[in-house]
Amino acid sequence: MTVTSPDSTAVGGRPVVPARGALRPLGQDEVRITGGFWHARQEVNAAATLPHARSWMDRLGWTGSFTGPDAAPVDRRGREFTDSEVYKLLEAMSWEVGRGGVALEARIAELTGIVAAAQASDGYLHTAFGRPGQRDRYSDMLWGHELYCTGHLLQAAVARARTGGGQADPLLAVARRAADHVCDTFGPDGTPGVCGHPEIELGLVELFRLTGERRYLDQAALFVDRRGHRTLPRHHFGWTYFSDDQPVRQTTVLHGHAVRALYLAAGAVDVAVETGDDELLRTVAAQFDRTWARRTYLTGGMGSRHADESFGDDFVLPADRAYSETCAGVAAIMLAWRLLLATGDGRYDEVIERILYNVVATAIGDDGRSFFYAHTLHQRTAAEALPDDEEQLGFGGGPRAPWFEVSCCLPNAARLLAALSCYLVTVDDTGLRLHQYADAEISTCLADGREVGLTMRTGFPDDGVVTVRVTKTDDRPWSITLRVPQWAEGAELVTTYGRRHVSAGDIVVYRKFAVGEEIRLELPMRPRFTAPDPRIDATRGCVAVERGPLVYCAEAVGDLDLDSLRVDESVPPVDTAAGVAVRARFDVPGAESWPYGRAEPRSATTPTTSLDLVPYHRWARRGPSTMRVWLPAT
Amino acid sequence: MTVTSPDSTAVGGRPVVPARGALRPLGQDEVRITGGFWHARQEVNAAATLPHARSWMDRLGWTGSFTGPDAAPVDRRGREFTDSEVYKLLEAMSWEVGRGGVALEARIAELTGIVAAAQASDGYLHTAFGRPGQRDRYSDMLWGHELYCTGHLLQAAVARARTGGGQADPLLAVARRAADHVCDTFGPDGTPGVCGHPEIELGLVELFRLTGERRYLDQAALFVDRRGHRTLPRHHFGWTYFSDDQPVRQTTVLHGHAVRALYLAAGAVDVAVETGDDELLRTVAAQFDRTWARRTYLTGGMGSRHADESFGDDFVLPADRAYSETCAGVAAIMLAWRLLLATGDGRYDEVIERILYNVVATAIGDDGRSFFYAHTLHQRTAAEALPDDEEQLGFGGGPRAPWFEVSCCLPNAARLLAALSCYLVTVDDTGLRLHQYADAEISTCLADGREVGLTMRTGFPDDGVVTVRVTKTDDRPWSITLRVPQWAEGAELVTTYGRRHVSAGDIVVYRKFAVGEEIRLELPMRPRFTAPDPRIDATRGCVAVERGPLVYCAEAVGDLDLDSLRVDESVPPVDTAAGVAVRARFDVPGAESWPYGRAEPRSATTPTTSLDLVPYHRWARRGPSTMRVWLPAT
Repeated sequence: MTVTSPDSTAVGGRPVVPARGALRPLGQDEVRITGGFWHARQEVNAAATLPHARSWMDRLGWTGSFTGPDAAPVDRRGREFTDSEVYKLLEAMSWEVGRGGVALEARIAELTGIVAAAQASDGYLHTAFGRPGQRDRYSDMLWGHELYCTGHLLQAAVARARTGGGQADPLLAVARRAADHVCDTFGPDGTPGVCGHPEIELGLVELFRLTGERRYLDQAALFVDRRGHRTLPRHHFGWTYFSDDQPVRQTTVLHGHAVRALYLAAGAVDVAVETGDDELLRTVAAQFDRTWARRTYLTGGMGSRHADESFGDDFVLPADRAYSETCAGVAAIMLAWRLLLATGDGRYDEVIERILYNVVATAIGDDGRSFFYAHTLHQRTAAEALPDDEEQLGFGGGPRAPWFEVSCCLPNAARLLAALSCYLVTVDDTGLRLHQYADAEISTCLADGREVGLTMRTGFPDDGVVTVRVTKTDDRPWSITLRVPQWAEGAELVTTYGRRHVSAGDIVVYRKFAVGEEIRLELPMRPRFTAPDPRIDATRGCVAVERGPLVYCAEAVGDLDLDSLRVDESVPPVDTAAGVAVRARFDVPGAESWPYGRAEPRSATTPTTSLDLVPYHRWARRGPSTMRVWLPAT
Repeated sequence: MTVTSPDSTAVGGRPVVPARGALRPLGQDEVRITGGFWHARQEVNAAATLPHARSWMDRLGWTGSFTGPDAAPVDRRGREFTDSEVYKLLEAMSWEVGRGGVALEARIAELTGIVAAAQASDGYLHTAFGRPGQRDRYSDMLWGHELYCTGHLLQAAVARARTGGGQADPLLAVARRAADHVCDTFGPDGTPGVCGHPEIELGLVELFRLTGERRYLDQAALFVDRRGHRTLPRHHFGWTYFSDDQPVRQTTVLHGHAVRALYLAAGAVDVAVETGDDELLRTVAAQFDRTWARRTYLTGGMGSRHADESFGDDFVLPADRAYSETCAGVAAIMLAWRLLLATGDGRYDEVIERILYNVVATAIGDDGRSFFYAHTLHQRTAAEALPDDEEQLGFGGGPRAPWFEVSCCLPNAARLLAALSCYLVTVDDTGLRLHQYADAEISTCLADGREVGLTMRTGFPDDGVVTVRVTKTDDRPWSITLRVPQWAEGAELVTTYGRRHVSAGDIVVYRKFAVGEEIRLELPMRPRFTAPDPRIDATRGCVAVERGPLVYCAEAVGDLDLDSLRVDESVPPVDTAAGVAVRARFDVPGAESWPYGRAEPRSATTPTTSLDLVPYHRWARRGPSTMRVWLPAT
């Protein structure tokens, strides 16, 4: 089945508007999140995170780098990719406008003016290269991040155009000039280079989708095909890190730097969809499947190596040195969303659900002003939080920090959160598909143009009851498709025709609806033990606890020694007033010297007691603590 | 007990000559390795590794950097610490002369001339700083490695002086001028800085021991006390990385960059011994104990993080991303040796034995021309070897490489190997102590000046029989102390008085010996299973196999899937014609999707068969292979 988007150049707040695919995404004007888990985060994002990010970017000179095209900033500060943070902030602010939240048009216009002032007359725009006293344009394809930054500029401009700016928006004009410059420079007859960090591909395809300008799509396709031929210089991280070791079409699993690999794969899906290249689409889908099966943490986090922020080998997923960068979570959602729209395969919904609730929800502090760059699954030593005004230099572990030397993650999460309503519902051939559950109001047109409306009400993810109410319909039948997650064993569907058991998968309710009619999906939210694939050495002999879409963890704010924890896996976890509890004891080891011997060292054992667990996304919100997701079993 | 070295300024080939301590180290003129496991490696070291290293240093321009003091090398190549590799090579060549192996005096003189030509008139010597067009001297204490390089220069000069150069050797003159410059610059009234990489402390103390020049010792003590006060600039690796986060005296466990921490600790022991600072000595000994108990791999390797080459938290010892740098092994031996000499505690012998047989012996290829920088304990994907003329840029995993961009490890191992005879035997209050077993000839003076001689004959480490024969003695009693390792359960001692069972620890044979008299120690060499401390998450549910001092591993050169290996730990490992074998089966997993579920995924199981293991130090010598030390148990 193929749902063609009615107007691929239409203005409407949504990040991805493919020309074809199994599902048509809805815009922010068609779906609004009105309450609950994600609404609260969207409000914090608007009220705190966006101004926090702007404030740090001003303070660190990242916005100040956008001086005129002929004068380099004096003592430009920050890494080569700071421009992209400004663009991601612009994108996030645009989605916030599209969400109908905080009024940010004036701030967007001001920031657009700052950015526009730095653009050269030929369209080139980057604050670290090409001006007097700076390095030459494109003289450092490995680390320069020039095309990477341009890609984020294009995405920001598309967001702005689709959320009120329209085709005449000044930021879009900047982006078109920048994109034209990229096509002029790197086109079929130009420099045959690729950027050390994929991203331009995504921006170019979406700008094509917005403007209809075919050369942007062609250029994106060229970048996808050009990559993997080792045109980048040799580096001790290897070509793998830069996704330049082998062509996308010959790649069987995502590898190298996680964010680079995921952005490239997402861009390749965009190219495949727009050019009708089904083989490329299937190749990337297979890459993702294998990555999900062998290189993904329980949280949905990706990237297990600190040294190069990369995927490890298959099944190398250490909990205590998990990297799982926030940006890799955002990027994996971007990829899964594109694959979902293209294929309609509901597996991608579970991917998105898992990452949203266990990476994205974990990333940002309650106040919206601190965040994780990396997401360890095991904190062995309690770490003090940084002062509010102190930038963190390293990326790994530790408490949420107000800012990082490399702060890609906060604006990345911010742009996702502001646009999150777009990921809830799509239009398929016969009706609507509900992908994620939240309090929301939906008003859209079906594939055949008929206007329909719904509300969703749920206590998700704490409670599994989802009530869907039809608010607009005509007298012809259409379908509402609900998703029963794999974890929801024993789910039931309640309609006016009664109650019935439903298995995991897509549940299609096709009929003539009446306004006010309700469908209720009841997803059991019992806590459960989860065991890892035995090939994951790092978690052998351990269990995790999940409840609904949430991964849980043991967290010790005080003296509890989680290194000696043993969970009795013969007693299922239970809901308690405090959350979820398991039966556990502590094996206190004896005297220490050499830690390897003929048998396990003798240890004293405490009696088994009840141990409260907390949702993983709630960890490190009560001060310095130790934590572990994987619990050694008795 | 305290054995005072008879003449601390004496020339005699040995790396460490403390003024006091429980044990007096012997020189290369007093102990020679004459055959067996280590002799073969010493021969390869001399014949292949030393010229190989010189050839690469010439080819890469590292020796060429030593242009005159007023002219910077055109386009100086390599990192800031390449000078130190030249110095370590000079040190290794000097020990090779001391060993009585290859005649290298002319080559040493030539290289000394090259080095000396670059020294400034005030004694400063570093090829990357201070000359026209270069950065100012000591303008980058964090990464400049100037004092680090000087430390290695001092150690090289001491080695040369003690192996024939004497007090008038030109390299020693260069070193004294350099040391004087360091004292002038960083003395009590000078710049209060420390180098980002400890090492100068070791060089200064040993130069003091050789020359008697007290200010060198005082300067070393000052550097030890100055460190830990965060005088180095802020860096995203944190002060921890540079051992500058807390004073040595307040440190309870080694942390941060492993080689930095170990060099600093070794230098602190040197200072403590020479200044009579027993509290400092006890502090460092306690640091080492805790590091050994919580932060050391089964191989004795140290440092578990790739990202910053550092110790991880307690018990974070992932096998499949073990870092365990060769240099950290060499440095841990340096530290353990100093602690052994100071305290006489035989535990340090086992430390040295374990690291020698499982890190140092593993590091270098059979031909002496390729080496490991890092020592993984689990190779999941077979990696192709590099061409012989290709330098490896990254440090992690993979096959042995002919050279690395950072090639500290090869000359470090080379200098240890060339001087290895010094680590076999010491003089204590009443006689000789045998620390490591090898074919060797010993001829020395006891503490009271009496001349004695021994030979050792053994098939160690394959065979556990060690025969000690007295070759020189007078008619008064003295002692021969033999070491029974912890792993040698059931050891027996055979003397002219008969056979008796001996337990782990030091066995003192005190009597009037006759020339020709033999003592035979029989150490059982049965293979055994070893279990890890349960707090090491990475190896839970696994066993390792050891035999004598050797760690074994499963290695698959062909199709064997070691990820699905399960070892039957109820059947003890056995000696076979091929080596050591265990009973094992392979659990072939079923279809794959999400790798976490309610229970372990179903898998098909092969019948249990015999699986041959190889000594860890033999791995990756038969072409690309996968390998694992820790074997999942059934």
